[in-house]
Amino acid sequence: MALKTGEQYKESLRKMRPNVYKWDRLIEDITTDPVTRGHVASVAHSYDMSFDEKDAYIYTAKSHLTGEIAHRWNTLPQTAEDQMHNARMKRHQYRHSGTCKGATCAGWTGMTVLWAVTQEMDKEYGTNYHERLKNYFKYVEDNALALAGAITDAKGDRSLKPSQQKNKDSHVHIKEVREDGIVIRGYKTQICGIVGANEIIVVPGGGYGESEKDFCLAVAVPRDVEGLTCVITRKPSDTREEEEGWDAPKVGTITQAYLIFDDVFVPNERVFMAGEYKYSGKIIGYFAAIYRAAIGACVAGQGDVMIGAAINMARANGLSQKVFQDKLTQMAINNEINYGTGLGAMLAGKQHESGLYIPDALLAHVNKTQVAKLPYETKVITQDISGGIAETGCIPSYKDFQSELYGEHLYKALEAATDGESRTRAARLAEWLTVGAGIPGCMHGGGSPDGAKMVVKALTKWEDYAADAKRIAGITGEIVEPKKK
Amino acid sequence: MALKTGEQYKESLRKMRPNVYKWDRLIEDITTDPVTRGHVASVAHSYDMSFDEKDAYIYTAKSHLTGEIAHRWNTLPQTAEDQMHNARMKRHQYRHSGTCKGATCAGWTGMTVLWAVTQEMDKEYGTNYHERLKNYFKYVEDNALALAGAITDAKGDRSLKPSQQKNKDSHVHIKEVREDGIVIRGYKTQICGIVGANEIIVVPGGGYGESEKDFCLAVAVPRDVEGLTCVITRKPSDTREEEEGWDAPKVGTITQAYLIFDDVFVPNERVFMAGEYKYSGKIIGYFAAIYRAAIGACVAGQGDVMIGAAINMARANGLSQKVFQDKLTQMAINNEINYGTGLGAMLAGKQHESGLYIPDALLAHVNKTQVAKLPYETKVITQDISGGIAETGCIPSYKDFQSELYGEHLYKALEAATDGESRTRAARLAEWLTVGAGIPGCMHGGGSPDGAKMVVKALTKWEDYAADAKRIAGITGEIVEPKKK
Amino acid sequence: MALKTGEQYKESLRKMRPNVYKWDRLIEDITTDPVTRGHVASVAHSYDMSFDEKDAYIYTAKSHLTGEIAHRWNTLPQTAEDQMHNARMKRHQYRHSGTCKGATCAGWTGMTVLWAVTQEMDKEYGTNYHERLKNYFKYVEDNALALAGAITDAKGDRSLKPSQQKNKDSHVHIKEVREDGIVIRGYKTQICGIVGANEIIVVPGGGYGESEKDFCLAVAVPRDVEGLTCVITRKPSDTREEEEGWDAPKVGTITQAYLIFDDVFVPNERVFMAGEYKYSGKIIGYFAAIYRAAIGACVAGQGDVMIGAAINMARANGLSQKVFQDKLTQMAINNEINYGTGLGAMLAGKQHESGLYIPDALLAHVNKTQVAKLPYETKVITQDISGGIAETGCIPSYKDFQSELYGEHLYKALEAATDGESRTRAARLAEWLTVGAGIPGCMHGGGSPDGAKMVVKALTKWEDYAADAKRIAGITGEIVEPKKK
Amino acid sequence: MALKTGEQYKESLRKMRPNVYKWDRLIEDITTDPVTRGHVASVAHSYDMSFDEKDAYIYTAKSHLTGEIAHRWNTLPQTAEDQMHNARMKRHQYRHSGTCKGATCAGWTGMTVLWAVTQEMDKEYGTNYHERLKNYFKYVEDNALALAGAITDAKGDRSLKPSQQKNKDSHVHIKEVREDGIVIRGYKTQICGIVGANEIIVVPGGGYGESEKDFCLAVAVPRDVEGLTCVITRKPSDTREEEEGWDAPKVGTITQAYLIFDDVFVPNERVFMAGEYKYSGKIIGYFAAIYRAAIGACVAGQGDVMIGAAINMARANGLSQKVFQDKLTQMAINNEINYGTGLGAMLAGKQHESGLYIPDALLAHVNKTQVAKLPYETKVITQDISGGIAETGCIPSYKDFQSELYGEHLYKALEAATDGESRTRAARLAEWLTVGAGIPGCMHGGGSPDGAKMVVKALTKWEDYAADAKRIAGITGEIVEPKKK
Repeated sequence: MALKTGEQYKESLRKMRPNVYKWDRLIEDITTDPVTRGHVASVAHSYDMSFDEKDAYIYTAKSHLTGEIAHRWNTLPQTAEDQMHNARMKRHQYRHSGTCKGATCAGWTGMTVLWAVTQEMDKEYGTNYHERLKNYFKYVEDNALALAGAITDAKGDRSLKPSQQKNKDSHVHIKEVREDGIVIRGYKTQICGIVGANEIIVVPGGGYGESEKDFCLAVAVPRDVEGLTCVITRKPSDTREEEEGWDAPKVGTITQAYLIFDDVFVPNERVFMAGEYKYSGKIIGYFAAIYRAAIGACVAGQGDVMIGAAINMARANGLSQKVFQDKLTQMAINNEINYGTGLGAMLAGKQHESGLYIPDALLAHVNKTQVAKLPYETKVITQDISGGIAETGCIPSYKDFQSELYGEHLYKALEAATDGESRTRAARLAEWLTVGAGIPGCMHGGGSPDGAKMVVKALTKWEDYAADAKRIAGITGEIVEPKKK
Repeated sequence: MALKTGEQYKESLRKMRPNVYKWDRLIEDITTDPVTRGHVASVAHSYDMSFDEKDAYIYTAKSHLTGEIAHRWNTLPQTAEDQMHNARMKRHQYRHSGTCKGATCAGWTGMTVLWAVTQEMDKEYGTNYHERLKNYFKYVEDNALALAGAITDAKGDRSLKPSQQKNKDSHVHIKEVREDGIVIRGYKTQICGIVGANEIIVVPGGGYGESEKDFCLAVAVPRDVEGLTCVITRKPSDTREEEEGWDAPKVGTITQAYLIFDDVFVPNERVFMAGEYKYSGKIIGYFAAIYRAAIGACVAGQGDVMIGAAINMARANGLSQKVFQDKLTQMAINNEINYGTGLGAMLAGKQHESGLYIPDALLAHVNKTQVAKLPYETKVITQDISGGIAETGCIPSYKDFQSELYGEHLYKALEAATDGESRTRAARLAEWLTVGAGIPGCMHGGGSPDGAKMVVKALTKWEDYAADAKRIAGITGEIVEPKKK
Repeated sequence: MALKTGEQYKESLRKMRPNVYKWDRLIEDITTDPVTRGHVASVAHSYDMSFDEKDAYIYTAKSHLTGEIAHRWNTLPQTAEDQMHNARMKRHQYRHSGTCKGATCAGWTGMTVLWAVTQEMDKEYGTNYHERLKNYFKYVEDNALALAGAITDAKGDRSLKPSQQKNKDSHVHIKEVREDGIVIRGYKTQICGIVGANEIIVVPGGGYGESEKDFCLAVAVPRDVEGLTCVITRKPSDTREEEEGWDAPKVGTITQAYLIFDDVFVPNERVFMAGEYKYSGKIIGYFAAIYRAAIGACVAGQGDVMIGAAINMARANGLSQKVFQDKLTQMAINNEINYGTGLGAMLAGKQHESGLYIPDALLAHVNKTQVAKLPYETKVITQDISGGIAETGCIPSYKDFQSELYGEHLYKALEAATDGESRTRAARLAEWLTVGAGIPGCMHGGGSPDGAKMVVKALTKWEDYAADAKRIAGITGEIVEPKKK
Repeated sequence: MALKTGEQYKESLRKMRPNVYKWDRLIEDITTDPVTRGHVASVAHSYDMSFDEKDAYIYTAKSHLTGEIAHRWNTLPQTAEDQMHNARMKRHQYRHSGTCKGATCAGWTGMTVLWAVTQEMDKEYGTNYHERLKNYFKYVEDNALALAGAITDAKGDRSLKPSQQKNKDSHVHIKEVREDGIVIRGYKTQICGIVGANEIIVVPGGGYGESEKDFCLAVAVPRDVEGLTCVITRKPSDTREEEEGWDAPKVGTITQAYLIFDDVFVPNERVFMAGEYKYSGKIIGYFAAIYRAAIGACVAGQGDVMIGAAINMARANGLSQKVFQDKLTQMAINNEINYGTGLGAMLAGKQHESGLYIPDALLAHVNKTQVAKLPYETKVITQDISGGIAETGCIPSYKDFQSELYGEHLYKALEAATDGESRTRAARLAEWLTVGAGIPGCMHGGGSPDGAKMVVKALTKWEDYAADAKRIAGITGEIVEPKKK
């Protein structure tokens, strides 16, 4: 059973132990609770799309383990084209719900990265991580699972290493090594996709040295594993998604969570790194190259929806798209730069000997810097075109529209080239995308742009360029980096 | 009694008829209701500052009517320096509450513009509007009133004139002229400061021709006048301001409202324009020149708070301000451009023969284009420096922190170089300023940047520049604007 | 003989009829004249690199005609990887000389595009253009020729079609059809690489309709064909390249020319289109997709040299690269966006049935918009880091340094952390790259960004995005593009 | 005789000793030599404008010494309005010639700054510098002199102080103190306006401490003083201004020079600082506040000409201004921001007790950062609108147009909606303004933007903003700048 429908996927979630909270309230049925149903629905849609006549090729791929068709997020990308389809799927998903799904993304990428890194570790250390991972990979494919990826630790004081923190729980770590597994504890924060995931891939939040080896662990745990509590975070205007009415769009939502690992036991077959600090940086490096090459597709897909939202607002206001064509074209350009630079990273990449295709790191990190920049410009244009009622959602609430006293007046006041409700809904979408619950956190999500710039710095051949310039300038005298004085 | 304390001002609000709603609920006491108390508190602060030993000079000025010291928003700016103090006050106010106050701004400016335009109308038409306005101005000063300004109409289909709209109420208009006054009806929308205002100055939303003379009216009405209903709009994450806890800062808030004028009678002594369409454009022109020269101070003041928020977040994360100094300096530059260009408009302006000082329109509208641009850059930097928890406020709710089950874990997870609560509060402020209820709507608030660009186009001497360039290039042949082909 | 050395290539040029002019002076030996030697030298370098142990793989490829190794600019790119190597070669070339070579670029691309379009034409019209082109392609490969591409016409009044121009010569056109060939005349302007070319590929400057069929021609002519006169244009500070001394770098130069076709006869075997207007747009379309996907590599390569120039200047001034690291990283990011988006276009492209691989047009044109933008930012940073003497080359002339009276003083005045000559040379390079003869014309070269934006507009799925947004917003009412009123 | 005509001014220059060189050639008559005549002509124009019926008020002001009307550049600005007229004059001058004049700018500002600083020094040290300066000021006014200002030293290694340089001449310094005066030597570089100046005001290039007191000198010397040699620098395409024909516009030019002070004696009455290091920073501080508040007017004026150049090119190409209106409006906005922020600095400034009006330093330095930025954007737009022939001046030389062989063809090839010569001239102007001899060096001229940013950093109230943010966020815990770890 390599493919599940959306309904089968939901069923799998309903069987799990409730351990997700918001508002200090336990969410009993994650598939129907107002807080989480939107997120689950959007992941379910990707399951259903795997059977779509026209687009199934985007949502599925051939398994490298079984040769069968599986959900794309259960397979190993082996070529530049495979990675391009990862990007295509992300853009398609965003165009469906307008925002992030989470549970077909970072966990999957984490698992494929471990495919490569476990092979390297086994080679050096004679461990059997790769075999474990292969079995786990097979399990995931066979059960058509949705995976979340838990990378970001709570971190504590940024000027200190994990081992120097006042509270060791600031980073998830190995508390105890037992014969049959390990016990882990600590906090992973701002984790996307938990609500829609069957499983969580946990990897280190950074590349570490020997002193930090307790923090170098990679495991897979069921989302409902004993000892794990998940607390969903707030996001802008989150209550609207839980309210009745149209004050937020409801096709799909994004949720993020804080994970409290309170002495969670992980059996050996689910442990893929346990102290091999030398390879923690590899995990981060491969992960970032894949993830940041594809992430431009996410913001491009959301940008596509912003284009549509802006066109609708213009028309709802009685104005032609032509009035704003230059701005709309700029939005499209922004989207395509984010999308295209990622694709460029893929073309310039190469295949790891394990079979995993890894995009070019320099271009992938360059793309991240633009993912942290261009969508903001696109949002500003969305607000520019959409006008004042969209900019901050400056419209009375859905409840006020229901008022017997003045509701009719509000419908009339909002009416323009379309009816008052349609125009309000159009404005609410623009608001939601730019300052509402739809914003996915493109600046720091998946790592901060300053970190990406450091990688760009590390990978750029400064001295080669300086030498070229010297030669072209005809300089024969000495020009050197000054010593510290 | 030209000066009131904050408490006296609140008392004046409490005496008014309740006619303000949100959530289909009538707000009985506007000074204490969770929806409105923040807004009132921030206006009250400006009243109190009029007695401040150090800063009273910013919040007060000498009356041109009585020679006495009055609240600045009850006086006529007569010099570039006076207008600069308008800007200074705005920046100071934003630095106090982090956002807009509304009730010491557009209404005041509207009244001073009418001071000039009524004089011009009287000259041409022999009307006595200026005398009426003078009496009203005196009344405002004597009673130390807070004024909102209602300019923006609901507008309907933007490709049609007011008179062509399906629903005439799309714009506030004169429904009936009686001997003792006029009856007006229609919708003014997205009106700032209503909650904190004693009075509302209503002026036309555009400059109109003869066919639209019904829409050319200028009046002053008490906020609680019979026939007027005010509905407060939503804004991002608005419920947090009404909730208990720290998920939104609460020093001051901004509110905006839809005004439903349902046959409101205005007695003649409060009517300052009634059909003199030729002067409707003058009102808009003078208003925009004053307003858009000063508005840069608003966003500069909010930008100052963003600088502070970003510094606090950096430090809360354990990092020095120095790490981000280039970015912080860029934030300061953005603020000062918005502030400084407005001051430049003031220096380049001149005094109207009525005594009102009017900044240079070209520079004021140039400033508006930057007010719609630079604060967005400043917000992006705020998020860049502040990190992921601030970008989208990706932290569990206040309620979750109170959880007996896992609240302690959350405090620990958020702890870094400061305690968990302080870091959460610091992040919430950054969120509130950039994607939360603190965003004042700098793009379209006070008019859209595209409109400002049209004014820039109209006021720029294109042909003079083309002639200069021809002369410098030594061109003697003919180069002309092509005719339509 | 599929590969030539640089010297052999020069020899081939020396055998040609002199028909190139500058300063109203005929250039007798194009390989040694101060006006042209730099350009020829830089093309010769690419010939020599075809034998380079390390980098020959960049400068050569396997011929699709003979299976032999040929100069890359004599072969047909058949995969995304082939096109990526086109980009790599361009970046490599720029890093060698600091500027454009011209004669291994547009002519080559033109020939490969004709490979595809002639096949299409033959299919529809039963012509034998493809066979002719194949023979010509073979001739080029066998003789290892350098090709220039002539696309841009003089154009005349931009608001008129070619056939409507006062002077038909504004566009190159078919003057006469003879049995054995055609006679063409008119002006091609701003043509790059003529000086280094053996042959010129002439294609239409636009996609035309039936009324313009005289302008729809594609031919190959030797650069020294009878009836053709080439006039080299000025460029900023061009005289320095012709002067003695160091006031311009001299590794390689770019030249552009105006081509005067004064009744040039082209025999049938060199005619690949003659009136088939329907396919003129195809030529432009395929050409632009290939050219604009690769052009980012050109500006990236020049940007690499700017990075080097800036680092050298910083160090020459006594400052560490670290002082400017953020700015240098931004330069690298700009370069990689231009390079990477082009690669993305390649990955998203597909193979034409003729075998030619054509990148994705949308991404290629998006890249062009950034090629017209990011290098300017990179130049500004180069000037920012390099300081005042580089910004405008504000240093006395080479001649002044030779002055017996004050030459020694100048050396001393320029001395800093390196000797005066080295620092001057470093500054001259920065000047040359940013406001000197090294600037290649990235804005309009290869077509203007406004044209690229029109293609982006044409290829973006506006209505799909509007429909997505409507669905997500939950809009059921009608929102449509307004009709003209 | 407080006012001179342009001819009288030229006469005064002709009387001076020739000591200016270019191309290792002594310029005998600075008013007619092809290298310098353009610069002199543009300064002469400002003299003539002092008698202009319409605009004399811009070019003249009332003397604070005599109460008579004098050239503005011979008077002391005492109010914000006076400084605004400084800005107006600069913008007017740029609109006349398209570029910088130099000799009515920095020297004048230097003299007015010394007016203030000498008063302060006298107060502390009991010196009589102010009296000397007053006499010198009177002399300047009486003789209607043009002044250059020499500030920038050759500097040498930027990581070392002046006294640490290998060559002490890297900075102009006091070599010897005699009873009747001082002997100075060293290099001032990139000095603007020397060619058009009667006198040179020499001030320190930085604010120094006691160890550098030899470098703390302020003097006035005639341009032709014994021991001084001036070498004019190259600038982009400089030879064109010295050639016959239209390849460069010739209304006015800018020149810069290296000044070699080879033991120049300055009598005491022309010495205004000699070792009072404590006040060297004051000179720089006041100078920068005045200069950088006004410099925006320079780039605005040049930007005005760019607007005209772009409009002319569009029309010459057959296109309407309307096609490019958004871009043109953006150019205007850029100009006005540079102009307006400077005016804002003036309004926010205050009068020094000596009478000199000094703009606000923070806003002035903010403006400098934009002077180093916005004109580049304006240039890019100029090139964008103007098309390929303007971008790099890709047109054959004037000489080629005179060719009997093909000159006529070139005229025809360039013809569009205007004749070939006019279109060529229009393109040459756009080239000259953006990458030619007309570029004034707005990045580093008058000091580098990084220096301005350091001032912005120093003058911004970071801790105040952090405290505001803490208060608004409701933070009571401790958040502090981390200590070095």
